[in-house]
Amino acid sequence: MNRPDRPIGVFDSGVGGLTVVRALRRLLPGEAIVYLGDTARVPYGSKSPETVARYALQAGEILQRFDPKLLVIACNTASALGLGALQAVSPCPVLGVIEPGAEAAATVSGPIGVIGTMATVQSGAYETAIRRRKPDAVIHSLACPLLVALAEEGWLDDPITDSVCRRYLNQLPFEVKTLILGCTHYPLLLPALTRVRPDTTWIDSGEVTARSVDRLLQGSLGFRTASAQGPLKILLTDAGSRLKEIGERCLGETLDGVELVGM
Amino acid sequence: MNRPDRPIGVFDSGVGGLTVVRALRRLLPGEAIVYLGDTARVPYGSKSPETVARYALQAGEILQRFDPKLLVIACNTASALGLGALQAVSPCPVLGVIEPGAEAAATVSGPIGVIGTMATVQSGAYETAIRRRKPDAVIHSLACPLLVALAEEGWLDDPITDSVCRRYLNQLPFEVKTLILGCTHYPLLLPALTRVRPDTTWIDSGEVTARSVDRLLQGSLGFRTASAQGPLKILLTDAGSRLKEIGERCLGETLDGVELVGM
Repeated sequence: MNRPDRPIGVFDSGVGGLTVVRALRRLLPGEAIVYLGDTARVPYGSKSPETVARYALQAGEILQRFDPKLLVIACNTASALGLGALQAVSPCPVLGVIEPGAEAAATVSGPIGVIGTMATVQSGAYETAIRRRKPDAVIHSLACPLLVALAEEGWLDDPITDSVCRRYLNQLPFEVKTLILGCTHYPLLLPALTRVRPDTTWIDSGEVTARSVDRLLQGSLGFRTASAQGPLKILLTDAGSRLKEIGERCLGETLDGVELVGM
Repeated sequence: MNRPDRPIGVFDSGVGGLTVVRALRRLLPGEAIVYLGDTARVPYGSKSPETVARYALQAGEILQRFDPKLLVIACNTASALGLGALQAVSPCPVLGVIEPGAEAAATVSGPIGVIGTMATVQSGAYETAIRRRKPDAVIHSLACPLLVALAEEGWLDDPITDSVCRRYLNQLPFEVKTLILGCTHYPLLLPALTRVRPDTTWIDSGEVTARSVDRLLQGSLGFRTASAQGPLKILLTDAGSRLKEIGERCLGETLDGVELVGM
């Protein structure tokens, strides 16, 4: 029995993955969501593949307590480095953000750009996933380590942020007209990125992942019976002082009733 | 028996604390040093007091395996939030970077500025330590979350970094002519900070901490017998891809023979 009323578990390195939750709640408002942010060890983007995979497995164990019908890895770095490990042990399907992003990118013509953390870019996960669908794709990947810090500082509409975005994006060939936002924080910087590179199609991994989740639910997993917005439970491994502010910026809703868990 | 040939243990959240090791090796070249950087969980500056104190205790346990004569907490955030906990259980003396910085600041006249991470600033540790020595001190503290990211990106001599430094430092009153660099990464940004605020006396916690260590060794702890540069052992909890580059920038030497430890 599928029991479609079970929640969707969402795992992220911090609160940036709430941009994915925001997209899920917009597209699938009736679903119940349990979100786990590993704020005690955030960020993952500068850490090694082994460490990130280990953290992903630990997060999966915690989310299994809620008997999810589906696990979503909202963090690009954890999707790049921990998806296989988590799929190997999880009793329910596990979806990362890389495959949906690659799928969307593979449908466009012309060269594709990927911006993300150091670990995501070095993993080559987007390249692999895009080339599986489009073997002759031309892909330019670029690590942009400062962008998360700028988004967390809240300097979203700011000449300094524009300068940093320009510095990074100018490293990509002019012909790149499709860019994957390969980090959960980057949708917050979309106005700045667009100012720097106006004629670009941006692929937001939150939005494309929400559409993939929708398709999975339309398939065997099923939709939750609901007449109102589904509940959202938020678990964090640490309660730093600015998480509420940053989390609300990502989620687009007020952040209430956060619970702390050990991991 | 004191056994002064034992090493000095240095603990940091990442590799930024190697700026403190650099100062130690310059002032006390004969000493043996064991450095532990918690790169699997860096940064501490955005995390809660409880989590940082727990991490500090775990680091202390690992460093005790090397039978140190002294433990130095090189990380400002861990010094602010974990010193007491670590002193309570450590069999050897433990020195943080806050007290030496506060001591140096308390000797100058006029208002004092403190720049650091969110957690260090919110702890009020510098204020407490300065006012213990100078009850009427006027202190202005400011969190500068982006500076670590800029230093790690290596944009040290860069108009963007100057703009960010200006944005932050302009929030401090013009009368502040003494500023504590309350984060291990900030000495790397000293040229940029000085361009923005030229008539300032900068207190580098690495340098003042090295002088405090020197005084402790002159006292009961004793100096190591040495005719050459003492050995430096570096333990990290994760081996991210850019740590060697960033670590060498902080240490001012090549970084060889790094060992991984679990924590």
